Amino acid sequence: MQKVQPKILPGFMELLPSDQILFNNMIDTIRSVYEKFGFLPLDTPVIEHSEVLLAKAGGETEKQIYRFNKGDNDLSLRFDLTVPLARYVAMHYNDLVFPFKRYQMSKVFRGERPQKGRYREFYQCDIDIIGNEVLPLVYDAEIPAIIYELFKQLNFGDFVIRINNRKILNGLFSYLNLDNLSADVMRIIDKIDKIGKDNVIEEFKDMNLNEEQINTIINFITINGNNDEIICSLKQNNIDNEVYLDGVNELETVIKYIRDFGLNESNFKIDLTIARGLDYYTGTVYETNLIKYPKLGSICSGGRYENLTGYYTDQKLPGIGISIGLTRLFSQLKEEKIIESTRNSLLDVLVIPFDDTYMDYTLKVANKLRDNSFKTDVYYGNKGMKQKMKYANRLGVPYVILIGTDEVEKNVVSLKNMITGEQEIVNIDNLLDVLNK
Amino acid sequence: MQKVQPKILPGFMELLPSDQILFNNMIDTIRSVYEKFGFLPLDTPVIEHSEVLLAKAGGETEKQIYRFNKGDNDLSLRFDLTVPLARYVAMHYNDLVFPFKRYQMSKVFRGERPQKGRYREFYQCDIDIIGNEVLPLVYDAEIPAIIYELFKQLNFGDFVIRINNRKILNGLFSYLNLDNLSADVMRIIDKIDKIGKDNVIEEFKDMNLNEEQINTIINFITINGNNDEIICSLKQNNIDNEVYLDGVNELETVIKYIRDFGLNESNFKIDLTIARGLDYYTGTVYETNLIKYPKLGSICSGGRYENLTGYYTDQKLPGIGISIGLTRLFSQLKEEKIIESTRNSLLDVLVIPFDDTYMDYTLKVANKLRDNSFKTDVYYGNKGMKQKMKYANRLGVPYVILIGTDEVEKNVVSLKNMITGEQEIVNIDNLLDVLNK
Repeated sequence: MQKVQPKILPGFMELLPSDQILFNNMIDTIRSVYEKFGFLPLDTPVIEHSEVLLAKAGGETEKQIYRFNKGDNDLSLRFDLTVPLARYVAMHYNDLVFPFKRYQMSKVFRGERPQKGRYREFYQCDIDIIGNEVLPLVYDAEIPAIIYELFKQLNFGDFVIRINNRKILNGLFSYLNLDNLSADVMRIIDKIDKIGKDNVIEEFKDMNLNEEQINTIINFITINGNNDEIICSLKQNNIDNEVYLDGVNELETVIKYIRDFGLNESNFKIDLTIARGLDYYTGTVYETNLIKYPKLGSICSGGRYENLTGYYTDQKLPGIGISIGLTRLFSQLKEEKIIESTRNSLLDVLVIPFDDTYMDYTLKVANKLRDNSFKTDVYYGNKGMKQKMKYANRLGVPYVILIGTDEVEKNVVSLKNMITGEQEIVNIDNLLDVLNK
Repeated sequence: MQKVQPKILPGFMELLPSDQILFNNMIDTIRSVYEKFGFLPLDTPVIEHSEVLLAKAGGETEKQIYRFNKGDNDLSLRFDLTVPLARYVAMHYNDLVFPFKRYQMSKVFRGERPQKGRYREFYQCDIDIIGNEVLPLVYDAEIPAIIYELFKQLNFGDFVIRINNRKILNGLFSYLNLDNLSADVMRIIDKIDKIGKDNVIEEFKDMNLNEEQINTIINFITINGNNDEIICSLKQNNIDNEVYLDGVNELETVIKYIRDFGLNESNFKIDLTIARGLDYYTGTVYETNLIKYPKLGSICSGGRYENLTGYYTDQKLPGIGISIGLTRLFSQLKEEKIIESTRNSLLDVLVIPFDDTYMDYTLKVANKLRDNSFKTDVYYGNKGMKQKMKYANRLGVPYVILIGTDEVEKNVVSLKNMITGEQEIVNIDNLLDVLNK
């Protein structure tokens, strides 16, 4: 028969079992943290009406969409989880309890030009909290508390959550009569870590900002010190603008609440350069970095927005949320050897009978283990013992149980610890006790 | 602003939180059973090369595919999890340990004409065991053991796993000189539960089968009795055909092994009418039914096939597997009220401060609960106590903790059991003990 070459598309991640186990561990950890903070699961369709999904999109995003017709329908694959959330909340407004806290961990699709570290199909792990008309400021501190718990549990090493408030920047620009240019200015500020202060100044000059404007911005974004010192500097700035002052007050309150949440002071830091490129953030914004691996960039970002559902309803639904691009993060963490796969299976125990004449005894042992939640498999193949042990080794099973005529007659098993190499005879009635130790 | 109507496509399932919780519980249960039997997780791309995904497809299947171009690529969305598995195993043959046991629980896509109970995007929960050249027969009994464990845990009521072996049917047809018509005959046999014996006979006559052929087939498929009696009848049939006898022997051995796995005798039954429409099953086949709800049809089906990867490689990789179409099953179970959603949240505890002046104390309590794995939320909204309790009731939270000036001063909380309505004062140091009871 003519064979088809088995291959997948570039920009799509598919893992071998050992890496898939590692990836799923991360997903499980993230889910458990999200659920511990009261978030509800959501699972929206992969395919939606293009008209609905692209209500807001335009420019680069629209070009990346996987969009096609099927019958009379103009369809698109979701490219993020925020637009489907907005559509969901607008659609089910009367059935939801607000504040509505939801998590979704699903694949999204963007037909980008494939390049290193970029994926066309990737997991986003999002949470959002949506208020009805209002959303108390303390949520702006709950989000860092969640990020803190996430990265403590994920255990990728030291991290810092960088925090800013868009009102401070917006107020500053208003004070400098740069309102109309604020989006452009913020985009440039956002690049300071990548291109450095001098290049930022050059770009400002290209935009025809005057020296006073540039100096004020640069002085502002280079304010430093600890969190309290930064807030103090922001207050003493004599920038007489209501939005600015409102932002400084919010930031001060959020920092106070973050401390009430019990975060270690070294794990969060005001960073006035964070603007987040997206247009819709209007208050507190976040980025998260691994201290030893700055080149990974922000591994968890988000912020507060004034209205989630403007394209679909008149209800005012302010929200706050964060997103982790898990597929890319996973590949970066692997590459930097921050995480490593260690197991080729999830098994606790592999049961190996010498041959299949005592299958009833073998299965009795396996049943007993499974009934007590041990992940158990039996090697049924008709191979020599060497082959069978090789199989156990390749899977990386912690315990092997060997069963031969002797074992069956004496109602025991030979239990081998594959890490220490120790082997002992264990009575079937004591097997669970021994394994539980 | 012009609003877009928020809506999803027909044939796509999207759940409210209470149902999503219920659905996820089912997914979690299925996953835990699959993992307990040693299956490894797999997560293939949603989008693949059409050439690869459609290597085998044709006819109805091909018409249902979501297929489109992006740039120069001819792409399709996966329509099942078996073809991607075949492609994966062929592609990673050298990196896998055989027998390779994998589970995948993912969405698949079929652009069918929408009708009641049919979905265009739906979850399949599949397991397959793939052998290298050979796959021992005991796996044919392990599969029913897994189905048994699944539906005991899922707790949808009494169920029966119906078992047959395609060799018995194939051998019978060969004996009757009906080899060339066997696929057609089996398709008709498969309908006997739906259309009845008389209509089956009519359809056979339409196919120009002679009376002896029809009588032999009908006598055969109406053999009944308990499992041992059926095997006895099959042996005494005097059908002198090697494939037939091989199938009967396999079935007898599989039934013996199933007993070794400890299955309750009432939960599995030989059913000679099961053929499974698909062409590629070659040995043991399964269907599973809820006894009280026959109209749901088979809720978990599968079987053994001779070669998984014939379209991609020359390696011979026999396998066995089952699939649960979870989206459809979920909607049927809901409709029949076999399952019902009971909770609007996953929370164990909701903490409600009277107002936000003791946020530090409130957050200290919430932190303590979360640090001890209680799913905890805090109601931060500035509403009256009636509103706050209404919120707790709508979420269906089992415990509410109330915090006011008194509680803060005395280092206690008021703990309310929302089911019994009882309320008690609990010292913060005893809170975990009280909740753990």
